[in-house]
Amino acid sequence: MSTRSEQSAVTVLGLGPMGRALAGAFLDAGLRTTVWNRTPGRDRELVERGAVGARSVEEAVAASALTVICVVNYDAADAIVRRDAVTDALKGRTLVNLTADTPDRARDTAAWAAGHGIRYLDGAIMTPTTTIGTPDAVFIHSGPEELYREHRPVLDALGGTHTHLGEEIGRAAAYDIALLDIFWTAMAGYAHALAVARAEGVTARELAPFAQGIGAILPPIFEGLAEEVDSGSFSGDGNPITSAVSSMAHIVHTSEAHGIDAGVMRAAEGMARRVIGLGHGTDGFIRVAEVLGRR
Amino acid sequence: MSTRSEQSAVTVLGLGPMGRALAGAFLDAGLRTTVWNRTPGRDRELVERGAVGARSVEEAVAASALTVICVVNYDAADAIVRRDAVTDALKGRTLVNLTADTPDRARDTAAWAAGHGIRYLDGAIMTPTTTIGTPDAVFIHSGPEELYREHRPVLDALGGTHTHLGEEIGRAAAYDIALLDIFWTAMAGYAHALAVARAEGVTARELAPFAQGIGAILPPIFEGLAEEVDSGSFSGDGNPITSAVSSMAHIVHTSEAHGIDAGVMRAAEGMARRVIGLGHGTDGFIRVAEVLGRR
Repeated sequence: MSTRSEQSAVTVLGLGPMGRALAGAFLDAGLRTTVWNRTPGRDRELVERGAVGARSVEEAVAASALTVICVVNYDAADAIVRRDAVTDALKGRTLVNLTADTPDRARDTAAWAAGHGIRYLDGAIMTPTTTIGTPDAVFIHSGPEELYREHRPVLDALGGTHTHLGEEIGRAAAYDIALLDIFWTAMAGYAHALAVARAEGVTARELAPFAQGIGAILPPIFEGLAEEVDSGSFSGDGNPITSAVSSMAHIVHTSEAHGIDAGVMRAAEGMARRVIGLGHGTDGFIRVAEVLGRR
Repeated sequence: MSTRSEQSAVTVLGLGPMGRALAGAFLDAGLRTTVWNRTPGRDRELVERGAVGARSVEEAVAASALTVICVVNYDAADAIVRRDAVTDALKGRTLVNLTADTPDRARDTAAWAAGHGIRYLDGAIMTPTTTIGTPDAVFIHSGPEELYREHRPVLDALGGTHTHLGEEIGRAAAYDIALLDIFWTAMAGYAHALAVARAEGVTARELAPFAQGIGAILPPIFEGLAEEVDSGSFSGDGNPITSAVSSMAHIVHTSEAHGIDAGVMRAAEGMARRVIGLGHGTDGFIRVAEVLGRR
């Protein structure tokens, strides 16, 4: 389906900050790199560094055995690849979709790819653009393992760690969603904490060293609680959820007494109070995970 | 007001898990430690280790120049100390309140203490009971600096780091509230992420290593954003809040498609969308802190 030279070549569709970082890493690794972006001109610096700027998506994907797409979401990705000329050009080639979206969209795209003889892998990038090409980058992938192994040498050019999470195509997106859930919820908490602190006369810089301390205790706590959740025991180690809601109520009170919206904490507190109402008051807070997930 | 022997003595009111840990650390440091708890019997192990079990609160506070109280909240603390016999016994002595509650309650208790000639320091314990007496414990204090310095040698027996945050008595509680805001919001995000992951067939143990990775990137992000917030610039470093809400919408969609309540993320997304609506769409997510705090 593809020539030998196409095997050591890669195409990147989408040249936002992440797409440019990916293409740059492929170039640095010495791969023949073809790039395309909907808005022209974004490829200039990459072309100066040796990339081939394709005039169309079909020309871009025809240049390589492997195409990586990374755009804002699957609506944007579909608008790029789900056109007859592109679908024809992709036939027998591999598309790796590093665009972030939902597991459902990954599954839908895999079904479309299968229906058109396109080999398909889904993935997600868990670290910022600045990590691409460095050991700090974190990539997760899902889809046919054989296909993943075949393209692993090219993907390795992106640096960092690559983990194949399984054949089920939605798996990378599922991990991505869950991890972004943790990240953005924590960020919402931090933004809110800074607002409350400022209302109390405490600057962000004053709070930061202690906030970093809170951040640092999370990883071991996450690990310990994972054991509890999988085993279905929610002992809480002497920290009952009733004590958590007491803290939460203090936070809501202090926030609202300063006229600061506490909607996020109110929702979290409500979730915890519901768990207590269901009879789990002596369990640890993480019982919330089990109650939320009940069908 | 107090004898020399009382100066090397300390009283602990409240023998929940944290109170017992505090009293145990004082005993280990060789201080004459008097303990009291509302429910009798909780002092047994401590008395076996050499503590004096007081029969009443007034007897307990009369035994030491310094009394530390650590109970569930200020309602509980008030019920213990705001009685005439206890107030009289505390006169001229120092009360350090390590109970967690709101800054307002700390200020109210300080006013009560001042009105009764009781020397008063407020504080908070930022680490679990298991850290007490070890280098990992983190204590924060506020109130008269001279008073803090006077009792610092006894407080040091609790191990860890002690930071005096300022003379304004509500300051320790303000930090405590802000830090617990970060902690409990992050925990709500983790619990929710585990529920969504499970619905997608991903176990908590499978997600945990990646969740730990997310936790590990938070401290440096917190530090960088503190600079932005204090300086009033919210550049977002190429990560606009419009991109954050796109992720948030994916999380809400995936969660609710599995029948899992997404109230916390809905509230966070709403907060972020409001910031975009106010014209800050190209700013970073942390602009939320500034908008939340507007009067």
